[in-house]
Amino acid sequence: MIKIKWFFSRLILNLLVFLSLISFAKAETVMSAEGQYIFNTLGFYLGGVLVAFMAAGFCMLESGLVTTKSVSTIAAKNIGKFAICSLIFLLFGYNMAYAIPEGGYIGKFLMWSDSSELGTGYSDHSDWFFQTMFVCATASIVSGAVAERIKIWPFFIFAAIMAGFIYPISMGWQWGGGWLAVAGFSDFAGSTLVHACGGAAALAGVIVLGAREGRFNLKGQAKSLVPFAASSIPLVTLGTFLLWFGWFGFNGFSQLAMGTFDDVNAISKIAVNTHIAGAAGTVAGAVITRLMGGKTDIIMMLNGALAGLVAITAEPLTPSPFLAIFIGAMGALIMYFGTKFLEYQKLDDVVGAIPVHMFAGIFGTLMVPISNPNTNFGTQLLGVISVCVFSFIFSYIVFKVLKQTIGLRISKEAEKLGTDKAEVGVVAYSIRD
Amino acid sequence: MIKIKWFFSRLILNLLVFLSLISFAKAETVMSAEGQYIFNTLGFYLGGVLVAFMAAGFCMLESGLVTTKSVSTIAAKNIGKFAICSLIFLLFGYNMAYAIPEGGYIGKFLMWSDSSELGTGYSDHSDWFFQTMFVCATASIVSGAVAERIKIWPFFIFAAIMAGFIYPISMGWQWGGGWLAVAGFSDFAGSTLVHACGGAAALAGVIVLGAREGRFNLKGQAKSLVPFAASSIPLVTLGTFLLWFGWFGFNGFSQLAMGTFDDVNAISKIAVNTHIAGAAGTVAGAVITRLMGGKTDIIMMLNGALAGLVAITAEPLTPSPFLAIFIGAMGALIMYFGTKFLEYQKLDDVVGAIPVHMFAGIFGTLMVPISNPNTNFGTQLLGVISVCVFSFIFSYIVFKVLKQTIGLRISKEAEKLGTDKAEVGVVAYSIRD
Amino acid sequence: MIKIKWFFSRLILNLLVFLSLISFAKAETVMSAEGQYIFNTLGFYLGGVLVAFMAAGFCMLESGLVTTKSVSTIAAKNIGKFAICSLIFLLFGYNMAYAIPEGGYIGKFLMWSDSSELGTGYSDHSDWFFQTMFVCATASIVSGAVAERIKIWPFFIFAAIMAGFIYPISMGWQWGGGWLAVAGFSDFAGSTLVHACGGAAALAGVIVLGAREGRFNLKGQAKSLVPFAASSIPLVTLGTFLLWFGWFGFNGFSQLAMGTFDDVNAISKIAVNTHIAGAAGTVAGAVITRLMGGKTDIIMMLNGALAGLVAITAEPLTPSPFLAIFIGAMGALIMYFGTKFLEYQKLDDVVGAIPVHMFAGIFGTLMVPISNPNTNFGTQLLGVISVCVFSFIFSYIVFKVLKQTIGLRISKEAEKLGTDKAEVGVVAYSIRD
Repeated sequence: MIKIKWFFSRLILNLLVFLSLISFAKAETVMSAEGQYIFNTLGFYLGGVLVAFMAAGFCMLESGLVTTKSVSTIAAKNIGKFAICSLIFLLFGYNMAYAIPEGGYIGKFLMWSDSSELGTGYSDHSDWFFQTMFVCATASIVSGAVAERIKIWPFFIFAAIMAGFIYPISMGWQWGGGWLAVAGFSDFAGSTLVHACGGAAALAGVIVLGAREGRFNLKGQAKSLVPFAASSIPLVTLGTFLLWFGWFGFNGFSQLAMGTFDDVNAISKIAVNTHIAGAAGTVAGAVITRLMGGKTDIIMMLNGALAGLVAITAEPLTPSPFLAIFIGAMGALIMYFGTKFLEYQKLDDVVGAIPVHMFAGIFGTLMVPISNPNTNFGTQLLGVISVCVFSFIFSYIVFKVLKQTIGLRISKEAEKLGTDKAEVGVVAYSIRD
Repeated sequence: MIKIKWFFSRLILNLLVFLSLISFAKAETVMSAEGQYIFNTLGFYLGGVLVAFMAAGFCMLESGLVTTKSVSTIAAKNIGKFAICSLIFLLFGYNMAYAIPEGGYIGKFLMWSDSSELGTGYSDHSDWFFQTMFVCATASIVSGAVAERIKIWPFFIFAAIMAGFIYPISMGWQWGGGWLAVAGFSDFAGSTLVHACGGAAALAGVIVLGAREGRFNLKGQAKSLVPFAASSIPLVTLGTFLLWFGWFGFNGFSQLAMGTFDDVNAISKIAVNTHIAGAAGTVAGAVITRLMGGKTDIIMMLNGALAGLVAITAEPLTPSPFLAIFIGAMGALIMYFGTKFLEYQKLDDVVGAIPVHMFAGIFGTLMVPISNPNTNFGTQLLGVISVCVFSFIFSYIVFKVLKQTIGLRISKEAEKLGTDKAEVGVVAYSIRD
Repeated sequence: MIKIKWFFSRLILNLLVFLSLISFAKAETVMSAEGQYIFNTLGFYLGGVLVAFMAAGFCMLESGLVTTKSVSTIAAKNIGKFAICSLIFLLFGYNMAYAIPEGGYIGKFLMWSDSSELGTGYSDHSDWFFQTMFVCATASIVSGAVAERIKIWPFFIFAAIMAGFIYPISMGWQWGGGWLAVAGFSDFAGSTLVHACGGAAALAGVIVLGAREGRFNLKGQAKSLVPFAASSIPLVTLGTFLLWFGWFGFNGFSQLAMGTFDDVNAISKIAVNTHIAGAAGTVAGAVITRLMGGKTDIIMMLNGALAGLVAITAEPLTPSPFLAIFIGAMGALIMYFGTKFLEYQKLDDVVGAIPVHMFAGIFGTLMVPISNPNTNFGTQLLGVISVCVFSFIFSYIVFKVLKQTIGLRISKEAEKLGTDKAEVGVVAYSIRD
């Protein structure tokens, strides 16, 4: 009898110990969840800061590539777009992308708000911060292509529409869980959703605006570049470096988490693949220009680096180093021949934004199935076409409407004078010995 | 008997199990404390690196805004001040601010040293690193305002006194736990303690030095800016971008902790509010110059961004997004009209440091009670006046003493020649076709 | 009998509880190991990004210090080297350094690959990312010294050999656990392994190439610098700031771990010592030029900062603040007199890379025993001599072979025209009023 009683008592004791262990283990899990939450949030924060550097990078790149008389304007357009896109994305853009029904086509016309709790895994504010920097990058792509002849305020209006509708709608199809995501499309950090989307919008702008005065002669050949020489190569180079480093955040933290062994490993592998794709693009740019023209063209090296980085962005995680090298180098070659093609078509893309971001972005997206078995070429093609066509047509309409209403292009006199004097009233350089 | 004995034995057993669990739980807490310590320390480290970028930002901003003949001097002043302020803050400044009795007025004349342990929650070294970058920012504000006519070494002496006494004493009133903190003043990341303090010192310098030769004509109107045109707008823009990104660390890690759910959420919200206040300031700068002068002045956009960032710095955590937008935009407008006011007063602030940092900083500090219920307008006003008056008078005396002793202003011949040739012996640009 | 049975039962129960606690504690340790893994990997990632900024820093520094006609070329060399060194280090360099037998002399000719698991403590990818940025820094040092007269592609070949063999072999002697490590040599973050190694290679290049045309007159005195004036001081300053901030990662994350109380404290202390050594170097550069030449030479302030940073790199952890100040200031003075010495020897180091990186690096390495009791002067000297002699001789042979085969130096006509027009075909600046 005592034995039985004792046995039960022991059982109860055991259960108590077991329960206390369980409850303790649970407390432990909560701790761990908090740790993950901090890591994930920190990841978005760091990623946001790094991608913010891309805004400065685009600004320096474009400031250096335009002629002296349009540098202040490019600066105004870049800082202005950075500001406007952020505000608009807060008010409309974010939920236009993310408050989308599963498999749907468009989100809600609703201001972004915070609903973080421990269970969401990261702070919504940090996510907004990170995503906002992406829309700023998308609008930056347009800025350079249409430089030296677009009016500032119509550009700002376009940037607002880009941040509020064009980018978030098509991006939401995939990253918001819309119809492209359901169809099986894959675009890790945005070769298509950011870069080709921005490039397609830039193409629309370039077509609607027309080339700069005197850029092409009557025979349709590009004139000697002398009157359109880049104002400052060191700034272009600085801009490219800043973009490159920003890409470590752009691709790395598109893993969207950092709080586990697997996530931090993924971020590390992404950083390596991103870096060597950029490296391969740089070398390809150097080799192709040396072979084709005899000189080692710094601008093609820099745009080669960017094209390599754009191309790897669709899938920076699954490729082997050699595939990353291949994708980066091919991206640069596509950019090189794409640049020639645009010139041949008399399309005046001042900084090469369309070949770098659209052509290399499309290529990268189509290469995803090589290393990622969950994708297929057909769906990738569907995604690329959908996003590019949507962005191009929407942008084309907006630019056309702006042209017919408030006007899009500065006057011929203003263009001769330069946008800096005509629009901004501040000369970019005042350098005297 | 056996039962009783057994009961006590079981009790003892239970106690043992309980104690082992407790001790184990304690070990667990220690683990967690270590994790928090690492996160907090990493936060200070990251914040310090980001705020260090502000030193480069100030240098680029000022290099671009001065005329060509003073660019090397601005570079020398900025890197020199970065070095001197750091060394002086190590020797005197830190403890002048933090080794202050509760509610007191001045700290100890004592070198900074490390006394970190797990219980302090973060590494003292990382805290020093972070705080040092703040004093460098404060001195940077002065540097630009007094450019083109101050001698280098007197400026260095002033920077040393700023880092050793002016900034740490008034900052210690609040962040060291001195009388302003006890009075209930609130200044999250330093709209007043850093920006208005630096701006007030700059005002003293501008008054004591007088305007650049030929800056104002006899009728008291500002002359056409042509002879004083900014040397490089792209560098001003780069500088503004670097300052903006540095602000994510400046405000974000002024939360002073990152190791908990609440802290990392606060950092994220601060990043968002900081960003959109800067964005609102940029847009306000663009709109006001377009409306007032017909052109979209890039310099006013950039200074508008900075004024918006300065204004939100006093309270970047509690405002709603709309309040952050309001504060940022108002900061920019105050900067704009403040710039006009200074010109009208014939006060020659070369880069607009006083309207950006002092005027917008005061405004931001006074706006705190709108969103933070633990503050009131009266105490905020008390804090603003105390810090500004202290900084202004102390700086005025230092500048006056320097002027009477070793001399503060370069000769008229040297000013005509430019400080680069007269003081540094290195021409800033040597650009030939 | 019951008592005994009961006693054993209790014993078993106790054991079970104990075992369950043990197993639970084990689970806890695994959690903690994951946390450490994430922190360590994040540390390498952050360090890699910061050191990447040094690549941009070197590029800006060198772009600003060369004459206008060689700026595009320096940009091409810097971005090209960044790309090539990364690819080569992936293929050969990493395992040439790290797959070395204990106490050995050379690693394996083997591509780098990933073998991370929780037990390795960090992601191999993040380690590769971090280490790659170091080899890019080493090659950058050479780039500036040999500027304005070296052909681009021979330089790229040299950079590839540097990244594949010269740097990784000698670095492996120490950081790979080779013979220098066994001998007791100590070089925390690479005063010798990175900076003196790069400086010695630069010296070989400068000797083989000879001085720029017209740099020294017949009497052996350096000609007035006017025809060789630096193209842009603001870019030099920006480059120095970027290098300085990159150094926080270069030295800080050379701790190679961040996941414990001790490691994060070490990183923090390293950041402080690194910062104040750079500060001391800046001030020393300002003071010495003011005393010697009457002017406060900005270039010597900037090179002073870098020399201070180089000097502290061998041991940024153990020194007291005062020792860090001493080491930084002495590094700058050695750089100053080293610059004069090279000029006197008619060695044309365009940017001062040899005095900054080699002379200050050697000095810093020899100073380690003052604060680190585990080292001695003799072994430090052995390490310095071994690495410098190896790097110098290997580089000398490579440069000589390149000179005899494909040619190393551009033609006199090309040098007169400038490398930008002759080699790159893109003029660096096209600035018009």
